[in-house]
Amino acid sequence: MTLQLRVPRFSSSLNPEPVSALRIGIAGLGTVGSGVLRLLDQQRALLALRAGRPIEIVAVSARTRAKQRDFNLSSITWCDDPVSLASNPEVDVVVELIGGEDGPARLLVEKALHNGKSVVTANKALLARHGTALALLAEAKQVTLAYEASVCGGIPIVKGLREGLAANCISELHGILNGTCNYILTQMRDTGRGFDEVLSEAQALGYAESDPSFDIDGIDTAHKLAILTSLAFGSEVDLASVHIEGIRHIGALDIAYADELGYAIKLLGISRRLDDGIEQRVHPCMVPKYAAIAAADGVYNAIVAQGNFVEKVNFVGRGAGSGPTASAVVADLIDIARGCRVPTFGVPATELLKARPSPIEHRFGAYYLRLMVVDRPGVIADVAAVLRDQQVSLESVLQRLRAPGDNVPVVLTTHETHEARMTAAVEQIGALEAVVEAPRVIRIEQF
Amino acid sequence: MTLQLRVPRFSSSLNPEPVSALRIGIAGLGTVGSGVLRLLDQQRALLALRAGRPIEIVAVSARTRAKQRDFNLSSITWCDDPVSLASNPEVDVVVELIGGEDGPARLLVEKALHNGKSVVTANKALLARHGTALALLAEAKQVTLAYEASVCGGIPIVKGLREGLAANCISELHGILNGTCNYILTQMRDTGRGFDEVLSEAQALGYAESDPSFDIDGIDTAHKLAILTSLAFGSEVDLASVHIEGIRHIGALDIAYADELGYAIKLLGISRRLDDGIEQRVHPCMVPKYAAIAAADGVYNAIVAQGNFVEKVNFVGRGAGSGPTASAVVADLIDIARGCRVPTFGVPATELLKARPSPIEHRFGAYYLRLMVVDRPGVIADVAAVLRDQQVSLESVLQRLRAPGDNVPVVLTTHETHEARMTAAVEQIGALEAVVEAPRVIRIEQF
Repeated sequence: MTLQLRVPRFSSSLNPEPVSALRIGIAGLGTVGSGVLRLLDQQRALLALRAGRPIEIVAVSARTRAKQRDFNLSSITWCDDPVSLASNPEVDVVVELIGGEDGPARLLVEKALHNGKSVVTANKALLARHGTALALLAEAKQVTLAYEASVCGGIPIVKGLREGLAANCISELHGILNGTCNYILTQMRDTGRGFDEVLSEAQALGYAESDPSFDIDGIDTAHKLAILTSLAFGSEVDLASVHIEGIRHIGALDIAYADELGYAIKLLGISRRLDDGIEQRVHPCMVPKYAAIAAADGVYNAIVAQGNFVEKVNFVGRGAGSGPTASAVVADLIDIARGCRVPTFGVPATELLKARPSPIEHRFGAYYLRLMVVDRPGVIADVAAVLRDQQVSLESVLQRLRAPGDNVPVVLTTHETHEARMTAAVEQIGALEAVVEAPRVIRIEQF
Repeated sequence: MTLQLRVPRFSSSLNPEPVSALRIGIAGLGTVGSGVLRLLDQQRALLALRAGRPIEIVAVSARTRAKQRDFNLSSITWCDDPVSLASNPEVDVVVELIGGEDGPARLLVEKALHNGKSVVTANKALLARHGTALALLAEAKQVTLAYEASVCGGIPIVKGLREGLAANCISELHGILNGTCNYILTQMRDTGRGFDEVLSEAQALGYAESDPSFDIDGIDTAHKLAILTSLAFGSEVDLASVHIEGIRHIGALDIAYADELGYAIKLLGISRRLDDGIEQRVHPCMVPKYAAIAAADGVYNAIVAQGNFVEKVNFVGRGAGSGPTASAVVADLIDIARGCRVPTFGVPATELLKARPSPIEHRFGAYYLRLMVVDRPGVIADVAAVLRDQQVSLESVLQRLRAPGDNVPVVLTTHETHEARMTAAVEQIGALEAVVEAPRVIRIEQF
């Protein structure tokens, strides 16, 4: 019964005819592009077996041709204009590693799809801004738009959601989607140091950009969340509806109090399918130390998805870096080489839902509130009265230091309440004469 | 540039012609089979969008037709003989949920593949025993043999390794692959109770079989490990080379000592690509409490894979149960409906390596050793002398209780050494007159 057929080494066993190489053109030879070149060169034979055919780089484009590089590009066509790859008849698949939501990256991707070429990209900004339109274009042209590398390169989460969990209605997902923020928060916890000091160190080590706002203000996380939301819920990519807060306002004191209360502080992207629409939010959260999501520290990323049949699944891995991102790009190329084509966001782009966004004001959950107050009798009573008037119920109050007449921190946690009530309460509390700094609020999530 | 094409609802957007339903025949209507029926019924419309076509059950087979079931089978052909599904011209894909490494399950799968039908199975024993032969058959016939449900149903690990990490050389993987064992070990830790008591409770709760040996003796874990090893390393499935130990000898005392030493005890499947071949082993391990793998408790499973580009990736989810396993079966059906076909074990079956097994005697690592000894002077000196003679270096010795003349436990941990040396030392230690019980040995893994 078991047939021992030998097939020629570089023909697909799924197709008895020998097949030709998959010819790719790469735009962008930075960290990720270099990683892709290294990977394709280093495990050429293994990849040909897995892809059923060799993967060959036929053309590249990057900003500077003269730059010293680790690999020999002499046999590969050099293109000064990356967009020309889209019209190159030698190129089957365009790999876009330029970055940026518009400009040459967008032009290249649109033109390549329009010309019937599949595209592999690591560009989260592009997908988050133009994902629905690009998916419509790719599917109309019957080609693939693949983007595993755009979200947590080291975690095969796009494939995991789109195919691995395809049998499920996903109700919720949450993730640590930015390694820079997770590194900073982990270092703050482990060293007790403040945000600015740890950020400077992360910049010196190359873990944070010289202009870090894209990461630490939550924008990068929002891009990734918008993509994952679309995959999970079959909805149009809707970056504009993501509520975004970063980690700049997290202090060493907050990390210490969180630890004392049994929580870790993580910058999360959360999306949920609720009765009133789809909720998407990015902000620092206090999560129980024993929650699955809290297990990812340092530069690791993690994503937890909740499906109606599979229940909870947790994926953890490196979020970025040359190797992990190259791994994701090449996995997409292997799918294309094999002829595996699935809709860009799991369901046909024409069927993506135009979902109503559920605004952050509708959030229902617990809160951590840190105040800097003048240490004198009656202050906590005033704060508690404001919360009572907003029907916010206190869970705990911590005041450790005594410094009569001076400023001391007071920490409160609430039971579950509505964001709108909390926002109103915090505004009134901030206006109290004894409250000497803007109150710090961190949402508590009990996953 | 963005084309707003409307396509008919149940035609694939990837193929402008309307496509016909994928017609499946299911053999076995136990826990998993019922879950598959429920899932296909409950989210019919979503699945048709994701699969590009409806998935229709046209025939079923189970042991007892008369049994009361939650779903209406009146419109579905009933087959008394499951193997007849393999010849039914109405059936495109056979779903084998009978179980067992031989008998009707094997007959059905072989015949279906032989007849050019794709097969989806949850049968780990079948794959672990006959995986290579079945893969060769499937690929010769150009059909799919899909088995996501056979390994940790709630974790899309087959897809993760075969496609998600396809660009990597995998060097090592380790996993908690059996929910029953993980539940028992977690309960022992959380309650301080002994193995037998916790096992009885697990049986009463339905978490363990009335004959639990398949789970607690590590056989189920070995089946799953053999499949994952083949996927990870592109080698023929080699169950016979898996070193297997179960958890029967783990005592409450061991759990307590592990905790004190900073470890958790987990039954792991481990496979590694070493210089002398591929190592596959199943046995209880002490792992640092902070290791990624230690995060999965209770009935959760976890798998950590190490790739040369992606580095470490950790997948955590439910290992078994009706819903998670049905989710895996239906994900495979969606792939087949879409026409996505990849080699069974990632590379063509004809190219799978006949890898040399690296025997357990070659393991190099640390050990935990628990002895029950007569509490009198000189005993630890005798034990230490044996270890010294075998060149095994001690890391720590714990003796808490004092009971002169009576029996007390002594716990030792070693530095890294060779398994063969440790085995020789333990044999000599067990023969010492003051050692009154067989020594308990647990391997320590620093992941």
